[in-house]
Amino acid sequence: MDRIEAPPNVVISRLPLYARSLRYLLSEGIVSVSSQELGERINVTAAQIRKDLSYFGEFGKQGIGYDVEKLLNHIERILGLNQEWPVALVGVGQLGLAIARYEGFRKQGIHLAALFDSSGEKIGTEIEGLKVLPIEHIDRVVREQNVKLAIISVPAARAQEVTDLMIAAGVRAFLNYAPIILQRPDNVWIRDIDPVASLHSLTYYLAREETLRSEAE
Amino acid sequence: MDRIEAPPNVVISRLPLYARSLRYLLSEGIVSVSSQELGERINVTAAQIRKDLSYFGEFGKQGIGYDVEKLLNHIERILGLNQEWPVALVGVGQLGLAIARYEGFRKQGIHLAALFDSSGEKIGTEIEGLKVLPIEHIDRVVREQNVKLAIISVPAARAQEVTDLMIAAGVRAFLNYAPIILQRPDNVWIRDIDPVASLHSLTYYLAREETLRSEAE
Repeated sequence: MDRIEAPPNVVISRLPLYARSLRYLLSEGIVSVSSQELGERINVTAAQIRKDLSYFGEFGKQGIGYDVEKLLNHIERILGLNQEWPVALVGVGQLGLAIARYEGFRKQGIHLAALFDSSGEKIGTEIEGLKVLPIEHIDRVVREQNVKLAIISVPAARAQEVTDLMIAAGVRAFLNYAPIILQRPDNVWIRDIDPVASLHSLTYYLAREETLRSEAE
Repeated sequence: MDRIEAPPNVVISRLPLYARSLRYLLSEGIVSVSSQELGERINVTAAQIRKDLSYFGEFGKQGIGYDVEKLLNHIERILGLNQEWPVALVGVGQLGLAIARYEGFRKQGIHLAALFDSSGEKIGTEIEGLKVLPIEHIDRVVREQNVKLAIISVPAARAQEVTDLMIAAGVRAFLNYAPIILQRPDNVWIRDIDPVASLHSLTYYLAREETLRSEAE
């Protein structure tokens, strides 16, 4: 594979949207697409798509566009979606339960491989065909199943502890729903999902604007 | 208010976590806290907290720490949380319904003021005491209620259209659950919530690491 320069994170974050758009086109029986058409569904300009893809080599032909299936396969390979990544979920409270049952994950190739919880009431119960295991089993199960990806949905006070256990066992990437900034070594990746904090940072921009406006008056 | 320099977005994104931590301390009856103690619950170092807060003025006293209530009030004012921001929610399908009913929003000061949907079946029904209104009412209701903040949970194909309607009516900030990159003018802010895309970008880093490792062998 040619490597021109390391793609910025914002480019990586757009690739799953390109893949999703291509999958939709494929399901509609569309075999060829221009960067313009590809971008329309997700609101990205043709120029942006071409620039983003240029980090990964040459795609498409001038005036002909992209072969939908080939480009999809290529992007899925770049994103590692051509292989299965068993996912461990820690914390099956109300939120964790919703995550475990979320069809969007399954439909988009995310397969839960193990569930963990610390509550005696939950351990041993079955969710979506998986038995909930105690936290103490993290090390063994993560190693046995070669889990590299985990979803954290435990309370803030427990999140770092289970993350540390996961990292020690070999997990390298986390989707974190706990309202906490997880500490980790440089070779571990984290994406946070925190809608309340997101809303509360949006109000900052709204409040700042009101302040600036009232000062200008 | 002193303005030293504009705080980076990453600082703004940490402030809601500081506020949450302070709220917890206050509920526990703790009146004074060191930057170290404040940081422990959310895993931020004392130095980081002091640096983040320095963008907004002088807080706390050397050796004494912060007055919990004062600092909380100050951060809430910075974040605009000392005032109510009526929130409009567009799209009350499965996801939108879960958002409307999510207790975490209400408990943390996020008050839904209006619900919209395009489906004839949903319009007129009541959710959490609010009547679902048709999309056509967005302009009038947003203006009347002075809504500046909206949550988008409609399918990708409809998201830009409703966002445009919202912006035209005066909405300036969006929490976006639609799997699409919303176009907007520079003075409109957006935070995206897309767990599947987040997971699919995490696998990129995992796959890249495997490639690098196999090349090194």
